[in-house]
Amino acid sequence: MSTIRVELGERSYPINIDTGLLSSQDSFKAQIKSGKAIVVTNEVVKPLYLDTLLAALDGVEVNVVCLPDGEQHKNLTQFDAVTTQLLEQHAARDTTLIALGGGVIGDLTGFVAACFQRGIPFIQVPTTLLSQVDSSVGGKTAVNHPLGKNMIGAFYQPQSVIIDIDTLKTLPPREFAAGMAEVIKYGIIYDAEFFAWLEDNVQELKDLSPEHLKYVVQRCCEIKAEIVSKDEKEHGIRALLNLGHTFGHAIEAEQGYGNWLHGEAVGCGMVLAAKAAYEKEWISKSDLDRMIALIKLFDLPVDAPEHMNYDIFMQHMQHDKKVLSGAIRFIIPTAIGEAVVTKDVEHHILQNILNS
Amino acid sequence: MSTIRVELGERSYPINIDTGLLSSQDSFKAQIKSGKAIVVTNEVVKPLYLDTLLAALDGVEVNVVCLPDGEQHKNLTQFDAVTTQLLEQHAARDTTLIALGGGVIGDLTGFVAACFQRGIPFIQVPTTLLSQVDSSVGGKTAVNHPLGKNMIGAFYQPQSVIIDIDTLKTLPPREFAAGMAEVIKYGIIYDAEFFAWLEDNVQELKDLSPEHLKYVVQRCCEIKAEIVSKDEKEHGIRALLNLGHTFGHAIEAEQGYGNWLHGEAVGCGMVLAAKAAYEKEWISKSDLDRMIALIKLFDLPVDAPEHMNYDIFMQHMQHDKKVLSGAIRFIIPTAIGEAVVTKDVEHHILQNILNS
Repeated sequence: MSTIRVELGERSYPINIDTGLLSSQDSFKAQIKSGKAIVVTNEVVKPLYLDTLLAALDGVEVNVVCLPDGEQHKNLTQFDAVTTQLLEQHAARDTTLIALGGGVIGDLTGFVAACFQRGIPFIQVPTTLLSQVDSSVGGKTAVNHPLGKNMIGAFYQPQSVIIDIDTLKTLPPREFAAGMAEVIKYGIIYDAEFFAWLEDNVQELKDLSPEHLKYVVQRCCEIKAEIVSKDEKEHGIRALLNLGHTFGHAIEAEQGYGNWLHGEAVGCGMVLAAKAAYEKEWISKSDLDRMIALIKLFDLPVDAPEHMNYDIFMQHMQHDKKVLSGAIRFIIPTAIGEAVVTKDVEHHILQNILNS
Repeated sequence: MSTIRVELGERSYPINIDTGLLSSQDSFKAQIKSGKAIVVTNEVVKPLYLDTLLAALDGVEVNVVCLPDGEQHKNLTQFDAVTTQLLEQHAARDTTLIALGGGVIGDLTGFVAACFQRGIPFIQVPTTLLSQVDSSVGGKTAVNHPLGKNMIGAFYQPQSVIIDIDTLKTLPPREFAAGMAEVIKYGIIYDAEFFAWLEDNVQELKDLSPEHLKYVVQRCCEIKAEIVSKDEKEHGIRALLNLGHTFGHAIEAEQGYGNWLHGEAVGCGMVLAAKAAYEKEWISKSDLDRMIALIKLFDLPVDAPEHMNYDIFMQHMQHDKKVLSGAIRFIIPTAIGEAVVTKDVEHHILQNILNS
């Protein structure tokens, strides 16, 4: 088993990564302090993994909350529904929530854990590639608002993240590709060597080689843990993790949450950010081409929806959380392995890349 | 002006107390970092104080969100309504929220500030006695759930608390009495001398002597700042501030939020806690009598609603946030000026005091 620590003083916690962790009592039972846990999952993940998890929790008093699947349900209505069920199930301040599922379940459950009785313990058990490499680590929790993605949330760290690589075996190919967008992101913003390794191992990854997947999850979690430990609340370097997200959130909001997967929108957003970088002459043509090629190789969309022009993008992006004093801030790559936060992306550049 | 500091490391902040602060530009303008603020208030406070505050904010870009008045509106529906208005008004991560009103406005606005884009700055401007002496200080924010008071919330500190004693001139007598319940609470749990001073100054306080009111607000804020600085997240001593609240929340939930004022329910709850203490022989008859007498002198109810018997109280109290591993924890006075957290209040004692 690999263990990576997110160092945040008294809020530090381990990320455990291995095959078979979901069925291991050792992974879970010692962490349920009061002997009571509530598993929050969805209707797709439940038939696949709930029984395995419940067996590992044998002896703990466990209740289950099951939600509908999909980004369109990551909202205040479901937040309210979960808190009502927690109260009906007599959850207390020392009850542990366990988020069993992908990014939607993790973000929503984490936000409930942050707010229920002003904060109760929770454990992330991510079952998708995207949530394993990105959303389950770092304590960003949220729900969407019709006017903007992740607009209502909290920084709230889990007490541990337990990643069972085996769960990727049941992941639909489209979800796998969406997760790869966030994987490629780490290469672009932080680690040129990892980017090159991804280029060399596309087929092994698409074949779901456990060894390759484990390395990918581990490397992404290492990078994320390092960045989050330096900048938990995103006052600086952490913002780089939002590469592709400003454009991507606009696509998700415009298309209706759940129609484009989050990772698909981020993949396309990274292509737009790379094109902006090229227009600004911050990256070479060959870097631009490598980025677009790798995103394409994992079967991710590289073109925004046909009707989404400059005006439509701007309408959504003005609500972005990175807006400060009216200026939109973009994450733009400056090389493979490096990126910056900038508000200096001129309107004519945005018009060029968004209206083409 | 008196300034009391809540010491919480990088989250430390001042509480400024004086007459006339609401019309002082110095109180506000330096604190609005981005030059944009949104005032959240209610339909009762707005006609009284909004114009004064807006004049003090001259030169700052200000929007206003106005909510209906009353505890029954401290819920997720209003939370959603406020966040929607913030988005429509293009609030960003550096917009400052200003809570202008009583405890409901402060708790709700604080919770919105905690969650909007995962946290934006906010300033408490409490205009009722209860919010000045208690709810505006210490960073407890929340909304109610039909199954329990303050069940959804966050610990989120304001960047300052600005208390203008003059606002108490327009406070209805019933609201003044409700605030006095929280004032008396500090005497019972922490400061016997202050309790005796209150006994000696009932009439001056009921006459709203500014000098007496200023002393009361200042002393209560000092005690609260001291306790919160020691125990921000309520792992220990801070729980004492909940004297009367376990019984009180049950009354508020049972009667429907807003029918009993929060302070009224707390006053009655303190009487019940004192009776339990007397039954357990933890306080003398004379201490019990002094507590009940002072609560009565400020025109607060000392008897629970007629129909609320042991069974009804227990039904509500099992949802209390102080429940741990199934046991309800009570705050019980052990003398005037001292209290403890305990789960050792036997059922027959509860039956005696609740069924009488």
